[in-house]
Amino acid sequence: MIVVMKSGASAEEIAQVIRRVEEMGYQAHVSRGEERTIIGIIGDERPLNRDALERMDGVEKTMPVLRPFKLASRDFHPEDSVFPINGVRIGGRQVIIMAGPCSVESRSQILETAWAVKEAGATVLRGGAFKPRTSPYSFQGLGEEGLRYLAEAREETGLPVVTEVMAPEQIPLVAQYADILQIGARNMQNFALLRAVGKSGHPALLKRGLMATMEELLMAAEYILAQGNPRVMLCERGIRTFETYTRNTFDINAIPLLKQLTHLPVIADPSHGTGRWELVSAVARAAVAAGADGLLVEVHPRPEEALSDGVQSLKPARFAALVRGVRRVAEAIGREV
Amino acid sequence: MIVVMKSGASAEEIAQVIRRVEEMGYQAHVSRGEERTIIGIIGDERPLNRDALERMDGVEKTMPVLRPFKLASRDFHPEDSVFPINGVRIGGRQVIIMAGPCSVESRSQILETAWAVKEAGATVLRGGAFKPRTSPYSFQGLGEEGLRYLAEAREETGLPVVTEVMAPEQIPLVAQYADILQIGARNMQNFALLRAVGKSGHPALLKRGLMATMEELLMAAEYILAQGNPRVMLCERGIRTFETYTRNTFDINAIPLLKQLTHLPVIADPSHGTGRWELVSAVARAAVAAGADGLLVEVHPRPEEALSDGVQSLKPARFAALVRGVRRVAEAIGREV
Amino acid sequence: MIVVMKSGASAEEIAQVIRRVEEMGYQAHVSRGEERTIIGIIGDERPLNRDALERMDGVEKTMPVLRPFKLASRDFHPEDSVFPINGVRIGGRQVIIMAGPCSVESRSQILETAWAVKEAGATVLRGGAFKPRTSPYSFQGLGEEGLRYLAEAREETGLPVVTEVMAPEQIPLVAQYADILQIGARNMQNFALLRAVGKSGHPALLKRGLMATMEELLMAAEYILAQGNPRVMLCERGIRTFETYTRNTFDINAIPLLKQLTHLPVIADPSHGTGRWELVSAVARAAVAAGADGLLVEVHPRPEEALSDGVQSLKPARFAALVRGVRRVAEAIGREV
Amino acid sequence: MIVVMKSGASAEEIAQVIRRVEEMGYQAHVSRGEERTIIGIIGDERPLNRDALERMDGVEKTMPVLRPFKLASRDFHPEDSVFPINGVRIGGRQVIIMAGPCSVESRSQILETAWAVKEAGATVLRGGAFKPRTSPYSFQGLGEEGLRYLAEAREETGLPVVTEVMAPEQIPLVAQYADILQIGARNMQNFALLRAVGKSGHPALLKRGLMATMEELLMAAEYILAQGNPRVMLCERGIRTFETYTRNTFDINAIPLLKQLTHLPVIADPSHGTGRWELVSAVARAAVAAGADGLLVEVHPRPEEALSDGVQSLKPARFAALVRGVRRVAEAIGREV
Repeated sequence: MIVVMKSGASAEEIAQVIRRVEEMGYQAHVSRGEERTIIGIIGDERPLNRDALERMDGVEKTMPVLRPFKLASRDFHPEDSVFPINGVRIGGRQVIIMAGPCSVESRSQILETAWAVKEAGATVLRGGAFKPRTSPYSFQGLGEEGLRYLAEAREETGLPVVTEVMAPEQIPLVAQYADILQIGARNMQNFALLRAVGKSGHPALLKRGLMATMEELLMAAEYILAQGNPRVMLCERGIRTFETYTRNTFDINAIPLLKQLTHLPVIADPSHGTGRWELVSAVARAAVAAGADGLLVEVHPRPEEALSDGVQSLKPARFAALVRGVRRVAEAIGREV
Repeated sequence: MIVVMKSGASAEEIAQVIRRVEEMGYQAHVSRGEERTIIGIIGDERPLNRDALERMDGVEKTMPVLRPFKLASRDFHPEDSVFPINGVRIGGRQVIIMAGPCSVESRSQILETAWAVKEAGATVLRGGAFKPRTSPYSFQGLGEEGLRYLAEAREETGLPVVTEVMAPEQIPLVAQYADILQIGARNMQNFALLRAVGKSGHPALLKRGLMATMEELLMAAEYILAQGNPRVMLCERGIRTFETYTRNTFDINAIPLLKQLTHLPVIADPSHGTGRWELVSAVARAAVAAGADGLLVEVHPRPEEALSDGVQSLKPARFAALVRGVRRVAEAIGREV
Repeated sequence: MIVVMKSGASAEEIAQVIRRVEEMGYQAHVSRGEERTIIGIIGDERPLNRDALERMDGVEKTMPVLRPFKLASRDFHPEDSVFPINGVRIGGRQVIIMAGPCSVESRSQILETAWAVKEAGATVLRGGAFKPRTSPYSFQGLGEEGLRYLAEAREETGLPVVTEVMAPEQIPLVAQYADILQIGARNMQNFALLRAVGKSGHPALLKRGLMATMEELLMAAEYILAQGNPRVMLCERGIRTFETYTRNTFDINAIPLLKQLTHLPVIADPSHGTGRWELVSAVARAAVAAGADGLLVEVHPRPEEALSDGVQSLKPARFAALVRGVRRVAEAIGREV
Repeated sequence: MIVVMKSGASAEEIAQVIRRVEEMGYQAHVSRGEERTIIGIIGDERPLNRDALERMDGVEKTMPVLRPFKLASRDFHPEDSVFPINGVRIGGRQVIIMAGPCSVESRSQILETAWAVKEAGATVLRGGAFKPRTSPYSFQGLGEEGLRYLAEAREETGLPVVTEVMAPEQIPLVAQYADILQIGARNMQNFALLRAVGKSGHPALLKRGLMATMEELLMAAEYILAQGNPRVMLCERGIRTFETYTRNTFDINAIPLLKQLTHLPVIADPSHGTGRWELVSAVARAAVAAGADGLLVEVHPRPEEALSDGVQSLKPARFAALVRGVRRVAEAIGREV
């Protein structure tokens, strides 16, 4: 951490900051410039109370030297994290494709979709049983009934299942039926949930909040990792910007940058990332070209009847074409689908 | 709802949309323009599945005619909502001042602050016992111990207490000690929590998410109102933008616009809205000048020692000056503090 | 400037950075922490080529210590800049009100509006002759004819005139008719224009770009000041965010923060800042309560016939009420209108 | 255009809107719903003064049915625009690679870079002679001297040249030396410049403003096209968001969406789009995978000495690797480099 003193800071104010730094068990390293004195703090700055330092008399600002995440960082764990989930190897050479409907709507709908995505090349089945919805007047999911249908689809097709968990107390129930616990974008900073998923030890798919920085995403992952659960996948699903022609702006930069900052696998969700089905295939190819370790794609047999997200869901035939396109791109960069 | 057909939409595609609209129990009103056919849907559009319609063949886009919130709207409830909470009248002529530390850190800290803010003119005491923090390595609050200190401060000073509740299962505990349940910005779309606070019947202070539109804030309020709990206050606390000189951008436009759209009281939080103590008084005055019904201000006896938010907390003397300034502005627009 | 080296930076890489810093005429101050070595650069960092340093081998990032603006800063000029323009004193105790139509549409329209705003208390007349419009199919202004009408209105009413100049070659023409040259939001980083306005010596009203940071605004002012022209007013007019209920988000934080960072007068434009006439008065009061030195308000005798910006223009009677409200708020904080 | 009346709008207010619509030469189509009356306006809505309509008594809002651009749209010109520029075919099956330094710094620098990028596979040379810089204290380009060096590099290598033009009066000079006139992001809404480039008839590369929506980009193109100049390329170069780990957020969604909305070629600039050289290759591959017709890449023989943009410039060897990677991706989707 660097503390920048105000231009008129007094000798006493500088001395007080130094004393405070030393009291906290750090070394202070003073450097007097022409216009400002700066104080370097030597030692692990992550637990430092930056706000309090910044509020001391004579201080203009503080600047962190290190990234605030540790367990998620390449400094701590230089190699890629690769782990198997029910026979699917995540984070390795293979690009994983997770697909299925936004919501589980009925037994037949999820079974039909599961078979369709499996045939097209998907390796994991997605589907929501508990649905967070902006409006209290919208469909809120089938709940446990939906989970049972997912489990049945898994049994029939052999595809592992990823589904969202919305609250700590739901974890035991959801984990009974699902292989991967999804933490939704709106819950990315639901810290009680993060901790509980961490303790559960189940593999987690952590979606980036729609207005969360990459740093905040990695700090959210840190909450899970800090509980001793190493099987965390990060998911870029678009951020909120001023652009209105698309629902979200897929942050393609995040793919290579996250791969550089962290050892965790990075999944891309081009369905939410664009919000429009016509754009999904192009952005799926882009994400893989940029280095994504997997895709999460919404597929529905009849999107015009879907109870949620119809506008961004692909029909099975188009999804099959997406997989073929993505496969060629993956091969072009030395990976496979 | 308006459905805009694509320029080349066929007669059959148009007929299908009309049929679908009628099957859903609405009337369709067709209007053929030079370049596009548009279909107006007549009836309450709020429960309509817009996504599914937009996904039908030949449809270019859909446009809602009505705002999606109902119970929160002035259409439904034209008069201002005014309600008393432990003797404090919220939403009326008086501008309410809620103040206190970000976190309850110790018994003496909260008692000292409570007396100081009361003396300066505050009418409600704030303080966090459960703290959502970006980093797992930061102070996370005193928990129930903090609640007990808050209750003691209330008993001594007579100030009602507002404090954050982070999960549905915490509500019974928090409600034992607090007069107003605060729903934090990161939980604005934690729908399980919104529903539970709605069912609890306790007064709620709902903070706008830093990534939330005004519409989403009002839809979140709708979740609480729909459970039969009318005592909801909205709180503007700054949104995330590209500007980096301040932590958040206080959305002053939201104050008069929310007052126009909804009957619910609107509170301003200039501490989070700016993230810098030097700006808090100016933005507090601005919020009141723009029509806010109350303020939520962070005050700490020694901000340079605060365990959280020190950089945006005021010392008691400066807070007293803030109240004096705000009082003069309130009087200039015909209100009082 | 601080240079942070990568965790694995070699002794040779560190030595090279030091050599480079010294070659550029600065002193290097090295500090070895547990995880990173950092190098402080001592000397005026503003002309430093930060990008090139950041690209050297072994460098992780660079962090500026100083704000990049100089002539605009309080460090350089601690007192408020106060200057008279045709008898109107800008930047002092009085809050200046500039008002008039978005576009000059006809001789009678501008004369009628000029008299109306003068009567209501305005001290400067605004009106656009050259109009930047998003669409090539929209009204683009009357050009020089509009300037002549403005000059006539000035002669009749005695109000000084502010109007936009869009290109360097227009300056001589516009300066013939106008007292203050307005640089529009879309031209805030038209550096040729900034330089030319600087050289012209005419007073300038510099509007913040709709996605410009405060730092960029101050750097734009620096371009004008660096040409020896000290009469620059900054204008906050709203920034672009994700919110869609308003056209822009008025950045109220910018008012007190700019007053703290710079000696230049700060003007608020609540018409563009909100984009909706119903919100203009509330945000005008807020801006004055927060410390603005002046207001820029769009007024039109018949907004429903205005060729541009009708939706955010006030009718004269409502503008007169705005002035009365703003006057009371100004008095409440020890200023006057 | 749809006009939505307020819930309490009177019969007279509705009649007035209808009268106004008819006076303007349009047909009005009224539809009375349960909560609102809406009025459809039939006819070409692009020249309509929406603001004025929205300001009429009883009107709640207006909603456009059509996109506001015409010449740039697929409705007007369904086929892809493909055009040759000095032997290079833009917009066809081949993905064009434009590369070179941010600024022309010296004769030897530009010659060395030109040969390097040609050898690696570039088909157009980029380089700035006039540089818009945020700070008046930064290098501002060599001006005409730079243009002469560019022309020399073109003569030697045979590569056509793209370079930025910053003001209408520079066009004759720049067009003497350059094959493509670049309009920079900060000038995307410099309408005088757009018109002048349109009139010049020279091919244009129009960069999206960092604060501009896709609609605004297409409207800016419309300014050029409306002057009868059809050779316009659009360039996505990243937008400004809240994310701070990257300078800009490359909007990958814009690539397929622009290709759907417009017939104009779409170029991607991954250098500005990321602001970090380590991310450039990944995002270049992504852009091509998503359908970009070309790339604009910053290359410098010694980025650590570059006078501008060193941090996002590639060394020649890395650029050659980028081209190889991009070529494989292009082939995977049926195109070539």
